[in-house]
Amino acid sequence: MTTYASVLHEHLIGRQGSRRALNTPALVLDIEALDRNIAAMAAFARAAGLALRPHAKTHKSADIARRQIAAGAVGVCCAKLGEAEALAAEGIEGILITSPIVGEPATARLVALAARAPTLMAAADHPDAVAAIGAAAKAAGVTVTLAVDLDPGLRRTGVATAEGVADLARRIADHPALRFGALQCYCGAEQHIEGYAERREAIRARMEKLSAAIEALRAAGLAPPIVTGGGTGTHAIDAELGVYTELQVGSYVFMDRQYGVCALREDGRAPFETSLMVDARVISANHPQLVTIDAGLKAFATEAGDPPILAGAPEGSVYRFMGDEHGAVVPPRGTAPPKLGERVTLAAPHCDPTVNLYEAFHVVRGDTLEAIWPVTARGRSA
Amino acid sequence: MTTYASVLHEHLIGRQGSRRALNTPALVLDIEALDRNIAAMAAFARAAGLALRPHAKTHKSADIARRQIAAGAVGVCCAKLGEAEALAAEGIEGILITSPIVGEPATARLVALAARAPTLMAAADHPDAVAAIGAAAKAAGVTVTLAVDLDPGLRRTGVATAEGVADLARRIADHPALRFGALQCYCGAEQHIEGYAERREAIRARMEKLSAAIEALRAAGLAPPIVTGGGTGTHAIDAELGVYTELQVGSYVFMDRQYGVCALREDGRAPFETSLMVDARVISANHPQLVTIDAGLKAFATEAGDPPILAGAPEGSVYRFMGDEHGAVVPPRGTAPPKLGERVTLAAPHCDPTVNLYEAFHVVRGDTLEAIWPVTARGRSA
Repeated sequence: MTTYASVLHEHLIGRQGSRRALNTPALVLDIEALDRNIAAMAAFARAAGLALRPHAKTHKSADIARRQIAAGAVGVCCAKLGEAEALAAEGIEGILITSPIVGEPATARLVALAARAPTLMAAADHPDAVAAIGAAAKAAGVTVTLAVDLDPGLRRTGVATAEGVADLARRIADHPALRFGALQCYCGAEQHIEGYAERREAIRARMEKLSAAIEALRAAGLAPPIVTGGGTGTHAIDAELGVYTELQVGSYVFMDRQYGVCALREDGRAPFETSLMVDARVISANHPQLVTIDAGLKAFATEAGDPPILAGAPEGSVYRFMGDEHGAVVPPRGTAPPKLGERVTLAAPHCDPTVNLYEAFHVVRGDTLEAIWPVTARGRSA
Repeated sequence: MTTYASVLHEHLIGRQGSRRALNTPALVLDIEALDRNIAAMAAFARAAGLALRPHAKTHKSADIARRQIAAGAVGVCCAKLGEAEALAAEGIEGILITSPIVGEPATARLVALAARAPTLMAAADHPDAVAAIGAAAKAAGVTVTLAVDLDPGLRRTGVATAEGVADLARRIADHPALRFGALQCYCGAEQHIEGYAERREAIRARMEKLSAAIEALRAAGLAPPIVTGGGTGTHAIDAELGVYTELQVGSYVFMDRQYGVCALREDGRAPFETSLMVDARVISANHPQLVTIDAGLKAFATEAGDPPILAGAPEGSVYRFMGDEHGAVVPPRGTAPPKLGERVTLAAPHCDPTVNLYEAFHVVRGDTLEAIWPVTARGRSA
């Protein structure tokens, strides 16, 4: 048991050593499945000749980041400055913040973080933000490395055109306190296209825009040292098309309902397995065809459908949200629901925002609780 | 600035004293609106001759619980044991845990908490759970006060029949280590019926079942000392029908999109106002008809629709989720979106699970940051 758990967070633990006695709902991590997923993606990237900078927005965990780096990752991505601050404070190096940093308070924090973490890199997509970061860095005597973010067409973040990319990279390269570190392009929507052929075609079209941006940078004498992007849903396609030099895959460590479909390879194989679960318990059982468990809107992300039931209820049982703290487990007709006090294990509908709801992972090997890992950057969206 | 904020949580603060300089996304609480809401509900309950035990699952905050109690509340409700542990540790008294406590680890924690917090009360809905709590309490030499939970027909928690209620109360009253403290009945679904007349009729029907349970208890010589339930959506109806002796209203302190409609009184007046907001910032502005702000799936509960925009964008602008950490703000045709770095303020679609995503409330008076209050029981679903 770690110091974190035994000293500060007694409420997280059930009886030490036993998964069965966990306080529920609990976020449970199968360490064997996790390690297999980490090893499988590391081997894939190595074989493809790609660097791996897994996205830590999925797990927000220094413990998992350390395992990814030990398996060969060059660092991790963070979605937000707060996430990066929390992981850097735990000694994680090679952090790339994938969202633009804008506004005076965030700019000041970015420069302060870069001073403490020289391997840090941050995405940028606007000349005004680059100028503000440059001015703050210069005033502090710090060099900040920036990645230019290209919008593949999603209109979420990123420079819209190849010419805009070259212009922004030039502003960065010409600034005495800034360094041009990478070109980033993340095809968020395409991760979730279910058919492999359709997903491949969509990514191929996006990669034409990315290739044009690389060409514009080369023409400007600013060939990007790193071309970073990609995700769990498209990693095999990203490797095949060969435009990226580095993959930002995130969800492969845990998998979830959605990626269970979208991470399939062309041959239909599932290279990764579910390692993340929520253990819940039946706390009300007064009806023959329905019981209530202690996990509801505050235990699962809700935007990706209902959580699938993995164990503890008859095959074919379904879960329905029943408010903040409860859910119904409804077994198929003719079968009996689980009994009062029994454990029901569910998968996350969407892993990233589900993890964000918990203070810690309960790390299990089979039925044994082996460790408690804090969700280091829980809630660090700012 | 509190010790909590200045010592432990520097990352939560922008520039001290200024709302404009907050790190975003930030959960912002308008203290004047909050205090008006607290005072209005306290006055309402006093005039109706009802006790008030506001539901802390909405705010999970010891600071807000203290304000509610100072305004006359007899204590607060908690949805879960973990919530109760966290608030009791801050000295909050008169806690009622409204969900059944089931299973050995939770039963042991309940008894330990009751030993530290003698005013604690917990809901129960099953003879097996009552027997387990009784045995653990007896072994520890502690008396635990239990409320019998009646299911109004929602099938979430609660004893199904009036006879079952009397039977369970008898088991509690006859146990040497248990005390029968209250009858509870919460009409969750009815809170959200939009028309006042329809809502009133639905509650009236439910109250017949509650009245029958009270009658069964009286006939058994177990008249309940407290009849507790009700919510923000039905508080005026609950008072008028006169079956409850105590209201468990929660959302009135903050209000949200849904209760903005459902908390209206019969005369159409809105007795409470929005006090809870999320401040976000434009972090990408590369398209004429859309900008991206730094608040997404990890900044808002997602099961109750998109968050309404309160300020910072042209009238009629809408918000769309764009993944874990981002959202689009789309202004009406012919108007310009907010500029890079500008603040956009949004309301919570559903307040309870939105609060649960944040480490702290940024408490403002107008544009001045006055305090930072921790979300004391954040994530304490177990």
